[in-house]
Amino acid sequence: MTKEFTLSVDAMGGDDGPKMTVEGVAQAFAMLPHLRVILFGNEREIAPILSTMSPDVRSRMEIRHTEDIVTNDEKPGVALRSGRNSSMRLAINAVSDGEAAGVVSAGNTGALMAMAKFVLKTLPGIDRPAMATSLPTRRRDCVMLDLGANIECDAENLVQFAVMGEVFARNVLGYKEPTIGILNVGVEGLKGNESVKQAAQILQDTHLPIQFYGFVEGDDIGAGTVDVIVTDGFTGNIALKTTEGTVRLISQFLREALSSSLLARMGALLAMPALNAFKRKLDPRRYNGAMFLGLNGICVKSHGGTDAFGFAHAIKVAADLVANNVNDEIKHDFAKLHAERYPDQTPQIVAIK
Amino acid sequence: MTKEFTLSVDAMGGDDGPKMTVEGVAQAFAMLPHLRVILFGNEREIAPILSTMSPDVRSRMEIRHTEDIVTNDEKPGVALRSGRNSSMRLAINAVSDGEAAGVVSAGNTGALMAMAKFVLKTLPGIDRPAMATSLPTRRRDCVMLDLGANIECDAENLVQFAVMGEVFARNVLGYKEPTIGILNVGVEGLKGNESVKQAAQILQDTHLPIQFYGFVEGDDIGAGTVDVIVTDGFTGNIALKTTEGTVRLISQFLREALSSSLLARMGALLAMPALNAFKRKLDPRRYNGAMFLGLNGICVKSHGGTDAFGFAHAIKVAADLVANNVNDEIKHDFAKLHAERYPDQTPQIVAIK
Repeated sequence: MTKEFTLSVDAMGGDDGPKMTVEGVAQAFAMLPHLRVILFGNEREIAPILSTMSPDVRSRMEIRHTEDIVTNDEKPGVALRSGRNSSMRLAINAVSDGEAAGVVSAGNTGALMAMAKFVLKTLPGIDRPAMATSLPTRRRDCVMLDLGANIECDAENLVQFAVMGEVFARNVLGYKEPTIGILNVGVEGLKGNESVKQAAQILQDTHLPIQFYGFVEGDDIGAGTVDVIVTDGFTGNIALKTTEGTVRLISQFLREALSSSLLARMGALLAMPALNAFKRKLDPRRYNGAMFLGLNGICVKSHGGTDAFGFAHAIKVAADLVANNVNDEIKHDFAKLHAERYPDQTPQIVAIK
Repeated sequence: MTKEFTLSVDAMGGDDGPKMTVEGVAQAFAMLPHLRVILFGNEREIAPILSTMSPDVRSRMEIRHTEDIVTNDEKPGVALRSGRNSSMRLAINAVSDGEAAGVVSAGNTGALMAMAKFVLKTLPGIDRPAMATSLPTRRRDCVMLDLGANIECDAENLVQFAVMGEVFARNVLGYKEPTIGILNVGVEGLKGNESVKQAAQILQDTHLPIQFYGFVEGDDIGAGTVDVIVTDGFTGNIALKTTEGTVRLISQFLREALSSSLLARMGALLAMPALNAFKRKLDPRRYNGAMFLGLNGICVKSHGGTDAFGFAHAIKVAADLVANNVNDEIKHDFAKLHAERYPDQTPQIVAIK
């Protein structure tokens, strides 16, 4: 972004609250010179942290005080009803009010999704928003969605995820003709449940200028076979977390191996800069920030257990979505998809763009 | 096993056919001194390979000639109808005829499952057999099932998988009180689909002496949070393959890092023995061999693309199942579960043991 823009931040979300979020915003400022932030939360907790920061950082943040917070164990429905003055809700409101171009929170995922859906509404043509993240692969980063917002998905949901993911890969990751794959238990057309089979059929038949690759399997995620991995929220959540668990498992095995003998320790010392570069490449904080795609407004969920560095990356994700007009692109593609599939209906969605 | 036992082997299954399987059997003989093998397949292809082997190895293998094979792209139903004289089918028949204590094939998974189910039948109390494998974790190996035999599973299926997995962990992995977890998108009781919620309720309420931990997430697989991971075949297949893909991704990143500079290459050279031990620990061939649990007979599926070393491990898995009377234990536990849940019914299953 070359011009000033504002994001709202739920300062109270995340395991470390304002200590982590405020420092994260400060780190994001260093990456994003045109960013301004409205911090929603308890001023008595935020102000002392802010006071230790440089005048430049302070001049780019504004505190909006509220005492209310959404806790991590609160059910989404309860948070929606009783959290009207919570830092999370007010931060989302700032987007619908036009004060902020997007919102970032490290708080309760279910509550954030419920509130964001209620306040921002979904884009035309989207039944359910999806959680998405970019992931490293052997080729180039891919985007995977849904990651848990929708436990059960029908073919229409999956098709919508595919279109949204494609827009993200094209506009934010900058890929020219991103390829789309549906996660399945085999690559043959007969494999899988009804939802994936029907979704594949719809994507095969569409005249949208998208590159539908077909089915992909779990190992295709890491291989980078496609740029967009489409799946239901149950499978996507488990695949994503399985990846995280595997990275930790292998890291432990590697640490054990490299401290198992004097020679190994000496070797590790020599290779330290390379091993650190390797570690950075797999650093989950660099991939922190799950986007809620399909909302009429930009909303990014940071991992609750991350640190300031990770939170800064989640802010960067929101900034990228803002800079690339992702929502306008999604609206545009859905208008085309809708017009193509239901030619007899009034092209009401087309009119939006 | 301290006494002689026989396994039947589909010599024609796998990408490399008899070249791989016969050499794999020879390697398994070295691990299993009491093993004998009946090889089913084309004698003209098998005999020349066998002729290069030691008299001891040759004396422990017997060839049963057949020209028919099941190809990898054959649909299970077709293979079942037209493959009655295939090496795969005859190898399975050897188990139902009592000639072999178990069968190992690296051929078409769907065909193997269909034939094994048809010939061997399921154990009393089991609606659907499951594919299971053991996996490395940060604590100790765990067992995960189902891995793709059952795309959609209800609560009853998941409960049956849990009981079978527990028997395996106790008898084959040798764990005293193995813990069971159901794979889900969160650990709270309200998360997930109906099947996992109901299955959790049944396992919580049972008086079977099993240790039900509750729900686990994707990263708990690698963490080793529980000894038995229960999931439907769609999710399990994707989780397993995601693990494989992640291992390959990280291995590539590590290789790149360790060859990125002169210092890194020198370090890697010094640490070579440790890095090789690390590599061995993650070697997928050591975890080759998916068991079909719940059949009235032992059947193990080897990866089709493995080599002789991997195939020998699949044979070892079958031998472990034979040695530990896994099927008798499963029958016994199901009899108890059935008697507990349906006390009014004639305890017909109890009578089996």
